[in-house]
Amino acid sequence: MSRHYLDHASTVPLRPEARAAMEHWAATGAAADPSRVHTEGRIARAVLEEAREQVAALLGVRPRQVVFTSGGTEAVNAAVWGMTAGRPGPVAVAAVEHSAVRDASSRAGPCMAIAVDRNGRIEAGTVSEGIDRSVAEYGRPPVLVHCQWANHEVATVQPVAEVVETCRRAGVPLHVDAAAAAGHVPLALGSLDADLVSVSSHKLGGPPGVGALVVRRGLRVEPFLVGGAQERARRAGLENLPGAIGFGAAAAALARPGVLEAEAAESRRRTARLVEAAISVPGVEQFGDPEDRLPHLVCLGIDGVEAEPVLLALDQAGIAAHSGSSCSSESLEPSPVLEAMGVDAERSLRLSVGWSTTEEDVEAFVGAFPRVVEDLRALRS
Amino acid sequence: MSRHYLDHASTVPLRPEARAAMEHWAATGAAADPSRVHTEGRIARAVLEEAREQVAALLGVRPRQVVFTSGGTEAVNAAVWGMTAGRPGPVAVAAVEHSAVRDASSRAGPCMAIAVDRNGRIEAGTVSEGIDRSVAEYGRPPVLVHCQWANHEVATVQPVAEVVETCRRAGVPLHVDAAAAAGHVPLALGSLDADLVSVSSHKLGGPPGVGALVVRRGLRVEPFLVGGAQERARRAGLENLPGAIGFGAAAAALARPGVLEAEAAESRRRTARLVEAAISVPGVEQFGDPEDRLPHLVCLGIDGVEAEPVLLALDQAGIAAHSGSSCSSESLEPSPVLEAMGVDAERSLRLSVGWSTTEEDVEAFVGAFPRVVEDLRALRS
Repeated sequence: MSRHYLDHASTVPLRPEARAAMEHWAATGAAADPSRVHTEGRIARAVLEEAREQVAALLGVRPRQVVFTSGGTEAVNAAVWGMTAGRPGPVAVAAVEHSAVRDASSRAGPCMAIAVDRNGRIEAGTVSEGIDRSVAEYGRPPVLVHCQWANHEVATVQPVAEVVETCRRAGVPLHVDAAAAAGHVPLALGSLDADLVSVSSHKLGGPPGVGALVVRRGLRVEPFLVGGAQERARRAGLENLPGAIGFGAAAAALARPGVLEAEAAESRRRTARLVEAAISVPGVEQFGDPEDRLPHLVCLGIDGVEAEPVLLALDQAGIAAHSGSSCSSESLEPSPVLEAMGVDAERSLRLSVGWSTTEEDVEAFVGAFPRVVEDLRALRS
Repeated sequence: MSRHYLDHASTVPLRPEARAAMEHWAATGAAADPSRVHTEGRIARAVLEEAREQVAALLGVRPRQVVFTSGGTEAVNAAVWGMTAGRPGPVAVAAVEHSAVRDASSRAGPCMAIAVDRNGRIEAGTVSEGIDRSVAEYGRPPVLVHCQWANHEVATVQPVAEVVETCRRAGVPLHVDAAAAAGHVPLALGSLDADLVSVSSHKLGGPPGVGALVVRRGLRVEPFLVGGAQERARRAGLENLPGAIGFGAAAAALARPGVLEAEAAESRRRTARLVEAAISVPGVEQFGDPEDRLPHLVCLGIDGVEAEPVLLALDQAGIAAHSGSSCSSESLEPSPVLEAMGVDAERSLRLSVGWSTTEEDVEAFVGAFPRVVEDLRALRS
């Protein structure tokens, strides 16, 4: 049976450009430590720095701002550690942030909740309120504020530029989790000038196991991983050369003129088609902002049927999808994102598309979905 | 000009088995999140668990004891964090430990120095003394003791089994950094039963960007990376599937009957030849235990010439080698390992061999070394 992968928001299949670059690295046998003075080491250094330039170019920042990490989760942990180590204090964080942001923050100190609306949107005003509450409750502004670029479950794009402005005025550092957004919408991080931005390679078609923390010029960040002077003493450990190479190649593919924009337009058209077909089934609604959203993912609420049987029935129809609930556990738990939005947190379906998606993938869902819902509802009654 | 890579102890070229396994993963396009319930996710899960079994088999432990990390450095950081978070207290650590062990420990609390002899050897007795000193100075034993399996700069093998016994008697947890040793000498970690053991993939011919923390059965370790329930809630973040696959394949290649033993015997013969040729040059000596050592690496002291010009001259002769000094910085600083041993810490040369080494590589060094030293000494005088 043919398969239809509609779970790009969990992880994007490796782009051909990334695969080719990684295989070239493996084939040339130039494996070496980029910190060594010998020829092999200098070649490895050049390859690493080229990958850094490619990632920086996609994100619109200088290469030296890019600190390679083992992924988005490490970048987030490093951002929180880097700004809070030795400075315990409240962290302002919305419940719609990724679990990595929430968990790393609650480890660092008390969390000030930033409210969201029914679309999961953070407003600059609610961030301001969170900062004021921190002053009232703890006698000081937060040591760190988080604002994701866009939500990973419901796609709502956040007003990041306004939040940067708000935090700058209050003199409070801001971390932006852009893992869900990078590679799917243009990020001009240089002009945004947030203090810290996290991105993930596999969420844009590079390999898993690599990501980046983008650090504002001049900002000193305490390293999370210690024990070596790699990454300008900001992240210890031998550099993941094949990972960085694949990440760089995927970034370079997306940075070619018009490519990201064309993929985004195609994804938006496809997800619109998925939503249109889904909400024509009674008792199905779209969660998150229907307009100001990431192009490649949509979240649906399905009245009266649990997430897991929907996913299993779709899987039997050849379709790989995910529920809006927990992205980190093998069990499907109620989604804190949907709970914060005040919608049903246990009956959601997340569909996401990308570079490898075909019309057949979309039509497979369109054909199967009404029957899947109907069958499950019939079973229940 | 042909090249001769004698720097396996920095990083080992990717083994063909690892390359093939990673390319197979990329070719099948089965990229998916192993935590997902769909078919693609379940395939990814199976592949990940197979890799875990392969690594566990090489190390002689149960698969569920293996927590994949982004490398040896993260494994070490996770070991220290896991045993010291919320429990500040002294950590007993020898100066011959890797910088990751030393730096992660000094971040966690005061460090009790464990003395070493002129070969860089830790003795169970000096560990005992360190534990007693901790009780005397801090009113409690260390929260963690480190003892590397073998030294990464001078190859001296440590009496790990005795140190395990000493720590067990004192009721103190022990972490063993086995990154330099794993894949080069047999490690029966199951019967050793240390609390925590760190290993690195790229040090045994797997890809960089992946490693493992081996956790004693029943030991609960606070996660270092938070934000997801991956790795049985012991390490958050999407699993590095190609990395784990490559690590697993390299481990499986080494675990085939007789392979590790044959490689070790060949390496011992080759490093013996390198030492023999080197010490026939006046003013050159071997550092570290000449007998009870890792088979694949040797460290030499060269009287009267600095490390860097030796490395550059060898590089011009086609030979990639490293100095015993800092393995983490781009600058060559005096080696804390050699300083702790009481030998000249600024004039060392580390040569290391492995699966890809040929007789020509060895003979290239044998031919070039006397001239390199002679020329540099002539320049100086």
